[in-house]
Amino acid sequence: MNISAVKRLFVGSPLATAQARHERLSKTSALAVFSSDALSSVAYATEEILLVLVIAGTAALAYSIPIGLAIAALIAIVVSSYRQTILAYPQGGGAYIVTKDNLGRLPGLVSAGALLIDYVLTVAVSVAAGVAALTSAFPAFYGYRIPLGVLFIAGIATMNLRGLRESSNLFAVPTYLFVVSFASMLAYGFVRWAAGWETPTPPAAAVATTQSLTLFLVLRAFSSGCAALTGVEAVSDGVPAFRPPEARNARVVLACLGIILIALFMGITFLAHHFHVTPRPEETVVSQLARLIFGGGLLYYEIQTVTMLILVFAANTAFADFPRLAYFLARDSFIPRQFATRGDRLVFSNGIVILGGLAALLVVLFGGDTHALIPLYAVGVFLSFTLSQGSMVRRWLTRREAGWRWRWALNAMGALTTGVVMLVLAVTKFSHGAWMVVLLIPLLVMLFLMINRHYADVARQLSLDDYGGPPPIDHTVLVLVGDLHRGVASALRYAQALSTSVKAVYVETDPERTQKLEEKWGKWGLEVPLVVLTSPYRSLLTPFLDYVNHLLALGERHVVTIVIPEFVPARWWQHLLHNQTALLIKGALLFRKGVVVVDVPFHLR
Amino acid sequence: MNISAVKRLFVGSPLATAQARHERLSKTSALAVFSSDALSSVAYATEEILLVLVIAGTAALAYSIPIGLAIAALIAIVVSSYRQTILAYPQGGGAYIVTKDNLGRLPGLVSAGALLIDYVLTVAVSVAAGVAALTSAFPAFYGYRIPLGVLFIAGIATMNLRGLRESSNLFAVPTYLFVVSFASMLAYGFVRWAAGWETPTPPAAAVATTQSLTLFLVLRAFSSGCAALTGVEAVSDGVPAFRPPEARNARVVLACLGIILIALFMGITFLAHHFHVTPRPEETVVSQLARLIFGGGLLYYEIQTVTMLILVFAANTAFADFPRLAYFLARDSFIPRQFATRGDRLVFSNGIVILGGLAALLVVLFGGDTHALIPLYAVGVFLSFTLSQGSMVRRWLTRREAGWRWRWALNAMGALTTGVVMLVLAVTKFSHGAWMVVLLIPLLVMLFLMINRHYADVARQLSLDDYGGPPPIDHTVLVLVGDLHRGVASALRYAQALSTSVKAVYVETDPERTQKLEEKWGKWGLEVPLVVLTSPYRSLLTPFLDYVNHLLALGERHVVTIVIPEFVPARWWQHLLHNQTALLIKGALLFRKGVVVVDVPFHLR
Repeated sequence: MNISAVKRLFVGSPLATAQARHERLSKTSALAVFSSDALSSVAYATEEILLVLVIAGTAALAYSIPIGLAIAALIAIVVSSYRQTILAYPQGGGAYIVTKDNLGRLPGLVSAGALLIDYVLTVAVSVAAGVAALTSAFPAFYGYRIPLGVLFIAGIATMNLRGLRESSNLFAVPTYLFVVSFASMLAYGFVRWAAGWETPTPPAAAVATTQSLTLFLVLRAFSSGCAALTGVEAVSDGVPAFRPPEARNARVVLACLGIILIALFMGITFLAHHFHVTPRPEETVVSQLARLIFGGGLLYYEIQTVTMLILVFAANTAFADFPRLAYFLARDSFIPRQFATRGDRLVFSNGIVILGGLAALLVVLFGGDTHALIPLYAVGVFLSFTLSQGSMVRRWLTRREAGWRWRWALNAMGALTTGVVMLVLAVTKFSHGAWMVVLLIPLLVMLFLMINRHYADVARQLSLDDYGGPPPIDHTVLVLVGDLHRGVASALRYAQALSTSVKAVYVETDPERTQKLEEKWGKWGLEVPLVVLTSPYRSLLTPFLDYVNHLLALGERHVVTIVIPEFVPARWWQHLLHNQTALLIKGALLFRKGVVVVDVPFHLR
Repeated sequence: MNISAVKRLFVGSPLATAQARHERLSKTSALAVFSSDALSSVAYATEEILLVLVIAGTAALAYSIPIGLAIAALIAIVVSSYRQTILAYPQGGGAYIVTKDNLGRLPGLVSAGALLIDYVLTVAVSVAAGVAALTSAFPAFYGYRIPLGVLFIAGIATMNLRGLRESSNLFAVPTYLFVVSFASMLAYGFVRWAAGWETPTPPAAAVATTQSLTLFLVLRAFSSGCAALTGVEAVSDGVPAFRPPEARNARVVLACLGIILIALFMGITFLAHHFHVTPRPEETVVSQLARLIFGGGLLYYEIQTVTMLILVFAANTAFADFPRLAYFLARDSFIPRQFATRGDRLVFSNGIVILGGLAALLVVLFGGDTHALIPLYAVGVFLSFTLSQGSMVRRWLTRREAGWRWRWALNAMGALTTGVVMLVLAVTKFSHGAWMVVLLIPLLVMLFLMINRHYADVARQLSLDDYGGPPPIDHTVLVLVGDLHRGVASALRYAQALSTSVKAVYVETDPERTQKLEEKWGKWGLEVPLVVLTSPYRSLLTPFLDYVNHLLALGERHVVTIVIPEFVPARWWQHLLHNQTALLIKGALLFRKGVVVVDVPFHLR
């Protein structure tokens, strides 16, 4: 099986360009594809709040309820705000497009850089948390967290390389299973709580109070919980993937997403508190809660399975968003153009591969630990939330379309809230890792600008405006020979087809051999003049380069084509048996102006 | 500092071909250069004998005296035999040349393969033993044996890349220091022994008798001691490096070498026995002996230093012989031709580099342990001794020159003795590692023959005998374009210089872009016809390759030159920002018959 066949096996057969428009999603499919990221964060958001609060002792865990309510309110605000964006940008209102449109290039690039970072983190965090769900249920796998994480990422990347629609079917099952399972678990938990059921107090983990409960600590707990909001913007970015009417369908889906997200998140936070769940490194909060409610039977394993599935699949949202954003950036010449090319299966393959690689790297570097990654997470998302909502504020003010006042107010509230939250996130998580993101965003923006300048520079140099046409050429063809045989004779014949001014060049290391060559040349040299260069130090390269430089110095218009006869042996190992002269000469002359190097292959049997 | 400057620093400036004949050695220099291998083996030969005997208990060590005498006799026989070879082959009587001359190609290749293996082992064993001399004196370095060994090999290789004469001066000092120091130590030891001095019995290492003393064990001890003979052949291989009269000088040097070698080897073996030295892993026998005789002072350290120096420098003999043998094999087309090329400094650089690399690999694989390498050693040398002496027997019989009878007798005795010893070596050391050499020699011979067949095959295909001249060519030039700009226009101009039949080829992925291109083409296309190929699957390669195949199918004489306009950015990282289309096309067409691929660079500022 050759490489191409292996690619086909994993990626599928190529799709024709004409098939592109059929890749659209119904509302139910779209909810599955675009909500997995946002919904999956309920699997770890409550835990991250508790992990910060527990530093101040078990009693401080009670603060999870007001913090949870604040986050729920924040979700409601952001969802309402983004519903306005969908309306204004039915062609897809990603933060980069919206910001660039309304606030200009630089803010647009800032939000693009922030988002690219957060997409990578989404994949890494979701996969790490998915693996944690698995290892909570099966502690034997705990030691294999890193390879498992890398394996999951490779799997998701492969599915995405196959194309969107096939994967949306794959995703519908786990997303809806997750929603139904969690809703049932929480409902059953509430019934038992309302009935006054007393849970067995979990093994009193001796929690050492290492810090008193300060406002800073409460804010850090809130910041960690804000991971619940990541992915909410996915719907508004992906509007063109919806079936028509795209904008209307997307607004419905986004509203549903917001309601489900708040319900699940608050349900888990409330029950975790009332059932006295304390975070422990080897078992997740959701796992503990499910074990308490269902008692560790089949239903417990079902909850762990769907949690793992939704988390691993959540990474898929980033696999849809990252390549799309990369496409926009490449189209605008801020990142390499290769990101704007659709692959065989109509997806942006380069973006998918790069995202998978970077996320796998993060999983390896951070030991596959969700809690270690969380401080880097969400800062970028909230920066892009703020810029994107801010852009909408500006837009309503400028356009003043029908009903702009209350839409403006909604977006202004969104921008203000997310802006404040972003600052809180950056400050409270700074020393725990957020500094990397704060540093990386401006570096990325500088890189974007540098690349853009290069492309602009190239475009200017290539522009046909005021172009007088290419200069005429004085063409000389040199055939570099070490001997005269059938391969050389064929190369001479080829060289004669290229130009009437052909010379053969021989570098002499042994005068006796020169004499023999000259004798043969008289008979088989096709009347091409033979130039003999002496080489006292036996170097082939130096005298030849001197000669080429001498020719180039003859005039501005001079172009020298160097023909190198090269054997092509029948088997690869036979290459080792021949001098790699052609390679050497090519290396030395590859970037010389006015020089073109041509291998003329002579095929051996 | 660029790469070339670094090379100059280590290797020196290039030497002109005309300087070659001055690189000749006086007798004293030649003894230093060619004897270090043979002499240095006295540093470990006695120890290797004792290490085998001690398996049968301390009492068995007494057998070292008769074994030593047998080896001394063997040295005398081999030296006398090789003195005849020098007489017959003043141009250098390496086993390969001599055997090929008199017994034919296959035996010649067998002896060449055996020698190549043993040269590599010479370097590895000598360096390992040299490092052992160092770590005996300074046990703190014991843990760094492997890196030290690799470092020494790299140093010797570098000296050899600089050229022979400079290194012969370097080698004279340690070789003569070694001879004088060891002779003094042994003389002093003998005086004390004769005076009846009682050595303090060394710490009675509890030697467990694991085997009884069988004939097989005595023969294995003898085999291990035969390492003392390796390197004796170096003088006769290197006759042309002597000052004239070459043969006479070489015979004198070889006789001196034999006498010194026997004296030092027997002296050490005798004193080691009478002073009750028992081999121990962490200290060499020579180190123990020197400590006993000199009492561990400055003179002890002097002995260890010269031992280390001669051993490390001994490897140099192989660095002279391996590249020379490789040159002969390359000249006869049995190994890649690159081994026949002299480098800047008139030495066969490729042979030096390969030898150094293989020896370093052995040092790493065998943990830098002399004793682990010894079972592989000397089998090859004795095989080549036997073939070479056998060849001389045949030669005297055939030519019957003056005095042939007693020369014939000497060589016949040499061949018979070394032949028997070779069989003893192969059998007694087989299971300890000699099997690898026994296996490797026929494999190498097969490889030689395979390479030879390839070269013969190529020569036949390239031969001008019965050649009607190269066939005429129907030449078409295709310029592969993705757009039209100054770079493409320059490439079109260049293509027009190559042929009157030029076509531009564009692979369409988006009909709108095609229309724009066609508009530009009308103005700037230099009247080159534009062929548009459609690509429903957006692949550039497939439609283009189909088109090229279609052209090639038009006729046997058809040659298609594919011109690819390529940007050459000003900085290397900018390459990442451009599609590597040229590379892709080249890869796909590199070995296609009738196709020549030409990049035309367009240099960006």
